[in-house]
Amino acid sequence: MSLHGTYDPQNVFAQIIRGEAPCYTLYEDDDVLAFLDIFPQSYGHTLVIPKRSAARNILDIDGDALAKVMAVVQRLARVLVEELEPAGVQVAQFNGAPAGQTVFHIHMHIVPRFEGESLGIHASKKADPAELEALQARLLKRL
Amino acid sequence: MSLHGTYDPQNVFAQIIRGEAPCYTLYEDDDVLAFLDIFPQSYGHTLVIPKRSAARNILDIDGDALAKVMAVVQRLARVLVEELEPAGVQVAQFNGAPAGQTVFHIHMHIVPRFEGESLGIHASKKADPAELEALQARLLKRL
Repeated sequence: MSLHGTYDPQNVFAQIIRGEAPCYTLYEDDDVLAFLDIFPQSYGHTLVIPKRSAARNILDIDGDALAKVMAVVQRLARVLVEELEPAGVQVAQFNGAPAGQTVFHIHMHIVPRFEGESLGIHASKKADPAELEALQARLLKRL
Repeated sequence: MSLHGTYDPQNVFAQIIRGEAPCYTLYEDDDVLAFLDIFPQSYGHTLVIPKRSAARNILDIDGDALAKVMAVVQRLARVLVEELEPAGVQVAQFNGAPAGQTVFHIHMHIVPRFEGESLGIHASKKADPAELEALQARLLKRL
């Protein structure tokens, strides 16, 4: 998928927003949804997406929606740091398949980094559902 | 440097903001500065920083300053795509040395990705000044 094109309303994040697909929700309001990545690159890998902006990428998204997404990214980054105590945190957003984008609804990645642990390959290995549920419960206590 | 600590006003981006160190400026207003990375990971690698927020990372930054930075990230991403026509664009922000942060003033990376080209190693190879100047001139025409 190139940088330019039309939004596909059947992408999996659009399905999640409509309640047609499940997710491990961490935070939700009228504009923004945050949930655990089920193909995590590290423990605590979280995604934050706009709910009302049918945007493929940073070129398309409404500026106000982007600001709201980033406020939640900041809030979740703080929660992840408090609860999981990583050595670092990467925030990333990929535009276009050659840049690593796999779902064409704009999303911010929050990837905690732990000392001595390299990152998993993006979208390669599904996490254990029981582990995701336990992690979700830990993080929700701080939200 | 860990995620927690105090802001060092002698970091190179603080020096750039104060005019004590040079940079290849692409955009500047009262709150935000955007300039070319002199150790680019790809052609067009751009950095966007807050000017008035003495923040090391996403945990520290004032939310309003973060929103202003992101508006400029979006604007510059669009300009880079229009002018350089990359296959993709990565937006990234590193918090803490173990996450890849090398300058401890919060900054957003905008990294154009080109078909068949892998990324250079972060902060490893200095770009040719003449090439940076030519690139700056190309991009400024669109700003």
